[in-house]
Amino acid sequence: MRLKNIEMMDIVIVGKGPAGLSCAITARMRGLEALIIAPPKTTSWLAKTEQIDNYPGLPKTSGADLLAAFEAQAREMGVTQREGLVRQILPTDNGFMLLVESDVIETKTIVLAMGAARPQLLPGEEELVGMGVSYCATCDGMLYRGKRLGVLSASEEGAEETLFLVKLAESLDYFSLKKHETNVLPVTVKVIGEQPQSLRREAGSIVVTTKTGEHSYDGVFIFRNAVSLGMLLPDLATEGSFIPVDRGMRTNVPGVFAAGDCTGKPLQVAKAVGEGNVAAISAAEYLAAH
Amino acid sequence: MRLKNIEMMDIVIVGKGPAGLSCAITARMRGLEALIIAPPKTTSWLAKTEQIDNYPGLPKTSGADLLAAFEAQAREMGVTQREGLVRQILPTDNGFMLLVESDVIETKTIVLAMGAARPQLLPGEEELVGMGVSYCATCDGMLYRGKRLGVLSASEEGAEETLFLVKLAESLDYFSLKKHETNVLPVTVKVIGEQPQSLRREAGSIVVTTKTGEHSYDGVFIFRNAVSLGMLLPDLATEGSFIPVDRGMRTNVPGVFAAGDCTGKPLQVAKAVGEGNVAAISAAEYLAAH
Repeated sequence: MRLKNIEMMDIVIVGKGPAGLSCAITARMRGLEALIIAPPKTTSWLAKTEQIDNYPGLPKTSGADLLAAFEAQAREMGVTQREGLVRQILPTDNGFMLLVESDVIETKTIVLAMGAARPQLLPGEEELVGMGVSYCATCDGMLYRGKRLGVLSASEEGAEETLFLVKLAESLDYFSLKKHETNVLPVTVKVIGEQPQSLRREAGSIVVTTKTGEHSYDGVFIFRNAVSLGMLLPDLATEGSFIPVDRGMRTNVPGVFAAGDCTGKPLQVAKAVGEGNVAAISAAEYLAAH
Repeated sequence: MRLKNIEMMDIVIVGKGPAGLSCAITARMRGLEALIIAPPKTTSWLAKTEQIDNYPGLPKTSGADLLAAFEAQAREMGVTQREGLVRQILPTDNGFMLLVESDVIETKTIVLAMGAARPQLLPGEEELVGMGVSYCATCDGMLYRGKRLGVLSASEEGAEETLFLVKLAESLDYFSLKKHETNVLPVTVKVIGEQPQSLRREAGSIVVTTKTGEHSYDGVFIFRNAVSLGMLLPDLATEGSFIPVDRGMRTNVPGVFAAGDCTGKPLQVAKAVGEGNVAAISAAEYLAAH
């Protein structure tokens, strides 16, 4: 596991929707170094919305055009962006370390703005993390050299990440969590046509159950475009799939703020933009006080 | 006191800044009959701001242009506007009655969005309301026919409202709470060159004190472009000059919501727009439930 350190940021924003971009814009206004991190090919509900009528100032605008306008403004103001999935957030003495793919990014404050979509974990999955279940091929792949691996993937990017494991593993089975293109996989990979239903540990192996059978592996890798809140930051309080915040967008973890759809209903562009704005100002106040 | 009834509204929004206009736009999206009420010549901080950089989607825009864009969108969506100062809000069995100048407007829900500026009451003022101190010439003027009146006015509109009283009163003294044009007043009005400092009741009269003297009247009228929160809606909980709200922009009074600068810092356009949006949706939910 090779980790590259990026210099310490003032504020890292997880997500590039209206809340994340609004937060980044106001953070720059306040003179903060702001970095946005988000997976490359996120197809949000907003990007597909044909027309939004109630965002004040830009009536009758498509979701894609709204996002493009917000993004251009953020870029113009010097916001930096990095593509990648934040796999974990670790509190440190100076702030936080974010694991993004196989890199580490350090920051003093974090704003979670990754929208409302949350991955559905498989029964048994959470208990097995680090005990045979992993989310990072480059991080943990070498532990499974010459072993029998199962991969559970939600997207084509997961198939691409699998290629790294194919070279190491004795054998590799591939399950699709959602329908996607798997052409990239070599013929040595056995593509299982059934959805995985649950995971369990049995006699040192991880067993993946499907509707009609069971498949046993030394290790299982799961590739999705999002991470569950409990795995992202275990100390973070949640209410269902939402993050409770106060009026200053503060979560229960000092230095961690949240904004937009991930804080709960209503799921609206104007609400997300306002919350991103407030989160940036609360983060600036937090930085000034620490 | 002649009161004209306007038909029952779904939602009345007090204030026409970013919060009020955003609220009205989303209320219309939800199919609600929305009415905005605000004084005619409000010169807000925003309208005078040369450039706002951090409202997402409209970078480098003047405050006046932002407001004009929001207002055009609200008008386009069928929001109605009424000029006037809301003097009081009275809870009724079906919702609320708003006293606007000498009219009554009925509504099922109210969103308070009148910004952060709050009038500074004079010492003694609040205790004397209805006991010789009044805010409405057309409502209460007739009670003082042939009496000695004092007028405390913050603006030229106050001077205009005074004309109605001049015709009734035996004598009328005029004090300026803030510097403004008083050319409209007839020569029979005695303009006092000193700021009023406090009010008190003494032997059936209202005494206005200034730096160098005391002036005694049968009644005192006070004309400002805003009403203090305590007088607007006595049941409304306040924290200093702000209105505490929950994440759904609900105040402590069911059916009354608040949004924008009047709910507290940060005083930002994006925050106000987001809160107006949320308040509209909470009001729509309230209407659906009642």
